[in-house]
Amino acid sequence: MTTKSFIPPQRILMGPGPSDVSNRVLLALARPTIGHLDPAFVGMMDEMKGLLQYAFQTKNELTMPVSAPGSAGMETCFVNLLEPGDKAIVCQNGVFGGRMKENVERCGATAVMVEDEWGKVVDPNKLEEALKANPDAKVVAFVHAETSTGAQSDAKTLVEIAHKYDCLTIVDAVTSLGGTPLLVDEWGIDAIYSGTQKCLSAPPGLSPVSFGERAAEAIKNRKTKVQSWFLDLSLVMAYWGGDGKRAYHHTAPINNLYGLHESLVMLEEEGLENAWQRHASHHQALRAGLEAMGINFVVAEADRLPQLNAVTIPEGADDAAVRSKLLGDYNLEIGAGLGALAGKVWRIGLMGSACNMKNIEFCLDSLDKVMTEMGAKINSGVAVDAAKSAFESYAKAS
Amino acid sequence: MTTKSFIPPQRILMGPGPSDVSNRVLLALARPTIGHLDPAFVGMMDEMKGLLQYAFQTKNELTMPVSAPGSAGMETCFVNLLEPGDKAIVCQNGVFGGRMKENVERCGATAVMVEDEWGKVVDPNKLEEALKANPDAKVVAFVHAETSTGAQSDAKTLVEIAHKYDCLTIVDAVTSLGGTPLLVDEWGIDAIYSGTQKCLSAPPGLSPVSFGERAAEAIKNRKTKVQSWFLDLSLVMAYWGGDGKRAYHHTAPINNLYGLHESLVMLEEEGLENAWQRHASHHQALRAGLEAMGINFVVAEADRLPQLNAVTIPEGADDAAVRSKLLGDYNLEIGAGLGALAGKVWRIGLMGSACNMKNIEFCLDSLDKVMTEMGAKINSGVAVDAAKSAFESYAKAS
Repeated sequence: MTTKSFIPPQRILMGPGPSDVSNRVLLALARPTIGHLDPAFVGMMDEMKGLLQYAFQTKNELTMPVSAPGSAGMETCFVNLLEPGDKAIVCQNGVFGGRMKENVERCGATAVMVEDEWGKVVDPNKLEEALKANPDAKVVAFVHAETSTGAQSDAKTLVEIAHKYDCLTIVDAVTSLGGTPLLVDEWGIDAIYSGTQKCLSAPPGLSPVSFGERAAEAIKNRKTKVQSWFLDLSLVMAYWGGDGKRAYHHTAPINNLYGLHESLVMLEEEGLENAWQRHASHHQALRAGLEAMGINFVVAEADRLPQLNAVTIPEGADDAAVRSKLLGDYNLEIGAGLGALAGKVWRIGLMGSACNMKNIEFCLDSLDKVMTEMGAKINSGVAVDAAKSAFESYAKAS
Repeated sequence: MTTKSFIPPQRILMGPGPSDVSNRVLLALARPTIGHLDPAFVGMMDEMKGLLQYAFQTKNELTMPVSAPGSAGMETCFVNLLEPGDKAIVCQNGVFGGRMKENVERCGATAVMVEDEWGKVVDPNKLEEALKANPDAKVVAFVHAETSTGAQSDAKTLVEIAHKYDCLTIVDAVTSLGGTPLLVDEWGIDAIYSGTQKCLSAPPGLSPVSFGERAAEAIKNRKTKVQSWFLDLSLVMAYWGGDGKRAYHHTAPINNLYGLHESLVMLEEEGLENAWQRHASHHQALRAGLEAMGINFVVAEADRLPQLNAVTIPEGADDAAVRSKLLGDYNLEIGAGLGALAGKVWRIGLMGSACNMKNIEFCLDSLDKVMTEMGAKINSGVAVDAAKSAFESYAKAS
């Protein structure tokens, strides 16, 4: 047997994540591994907590990266806050609401679904009706930024309504953290999880989470043990907690944490509001370019996520063939549609390090070439200029 | 706020893991991130499966790295094989048997404990008695290589006994994989999990697992859904499976997988049996050095793991002070005792890349200096020569 070292191609990642990881973060990954109980590592973890509190805009003590991808962050929220027999209201307007339902049911709890069309935001009125009809609900869960559709729901309003009916809130912020305004304390979010491979532009594998006081209280008052040993926050916190003891729970993914730390340092350097602004301004540029080409957005203008642009595949363009050619000939990754939108849309990400004009121009130009060659019905040769001038206008106006 | 990039110190890792990660593996981590559905990544995953099959010595189709540390690998085995009301026999001779019990109970199953003293191996007779007394048991679980004590149980015999009573076996091989003989197919192990940060010398964060046909059959025949969505193998396999479809389940920890791939390529280059041999021969050297110094092993000679050396702390040596001085003055990490052995033993690892004569000499010399300075009762100035000559004798004899 003679397996060779794996040398990946150099791609431009403009799909739904992972996004382009900067060289600074990649090099951080390669720093020497140290022990997970090493005082130097413990110091890094303390900084990590502060950096995540900044990114989440929270003072929550219970803020840390779960040692596994975003799906495990989701599961951490559900298994710690729900017990068998509990009821949760789950808002679904895309793939990830469906995954939340799975989580609720696997906790032995009941999920009451509040459904909205894919591509629409969660309707606050429907949520309120569901809460009125289910006064015994304990938790309201929804997705802030639906990665499958690019719709951004009004988290602040949804949390307010949930609290009016005395429910805890679980918010999926996998794609919003670092890319669009997210104010955990100001909005009163009780439990939130995110990912590292979207607008933070760190490699996948970790899930930042944060729990407020009401959520922490609910965990303390549980009648049953959390069904997952690995994700049991009362155990995890003995390691990440502030008491300085760092009881051994599991071995943290040391080098991946170096990468996340570096990406959060970069976010702090740029400033959170500047990062939000950068995503917003570049979204306008990409949008102008795509629309000039004759490509339409799935989500209504007011509800669009700047970092995840779901667009309808133009007439005459073969979904898989276009994406495959972009990847093969241009090293450019854009995302396919998921679930109800599979085969109908593309998802173009502008996340973190990947959110810049060089990428936008390259993406528009490559899309133009590939689709023109394939005979798709688009306006050719106009997208890049439209993007540039939209970007300049936006810059002047702000 | 001005958080700086984190630059870790360069340590020598001779504790219970993580072990020293080689530059080859560190540099692999820093290769450009690509998408988890990218054909290039999928090709790497196929190789990974073959490399893990080699490391485990198995043809099991269901062989892959779980996207989280070893504890999650443990949980993967238990939540997929157990259902509420099931009974499992759990052998405990250290910390990790206790963690298995927690896992069993959180699945709504009952754990029947077979207890042996910490530092002893699992007693096959006690297991057989427990099986006779519990004919309704479905699973037998035990730790092959107890990282908390350094004892190596006879996995082959324990599996044989379990099969005689028609039980599935779950084996913890976190510390054994790549360091000491482990023959999954020949021994008939049904489900096994390991870690990357021990004898594979990749960074922590992934857990290689493998499931045989009987285990896969048991998963297919479940009456209830697996309680963890993230660890549900029927879902995970749609991504890792051989049907070429790669259905999206969760985003894999791309760069960490680059590291594991590289470490497995290195294992293949060295040859599995040569790696076992290297751990065995260096263990004899370390042992000779420690014994010359007057330091005794916790585990009986025949049952010792070469890669995890648990030794009694000598009279006059302050546990925490010695370890702290080794780390602070020599950048050398050795492990503290866990659980029942806390404060009584040190755990000196010889795992993967860290298992070499340079490290052994440095460790013995540093221990000698620190303990002599502190007035501990040891024979000073003899350990390094004893280690060298033991290593030479071992080389000549084999």
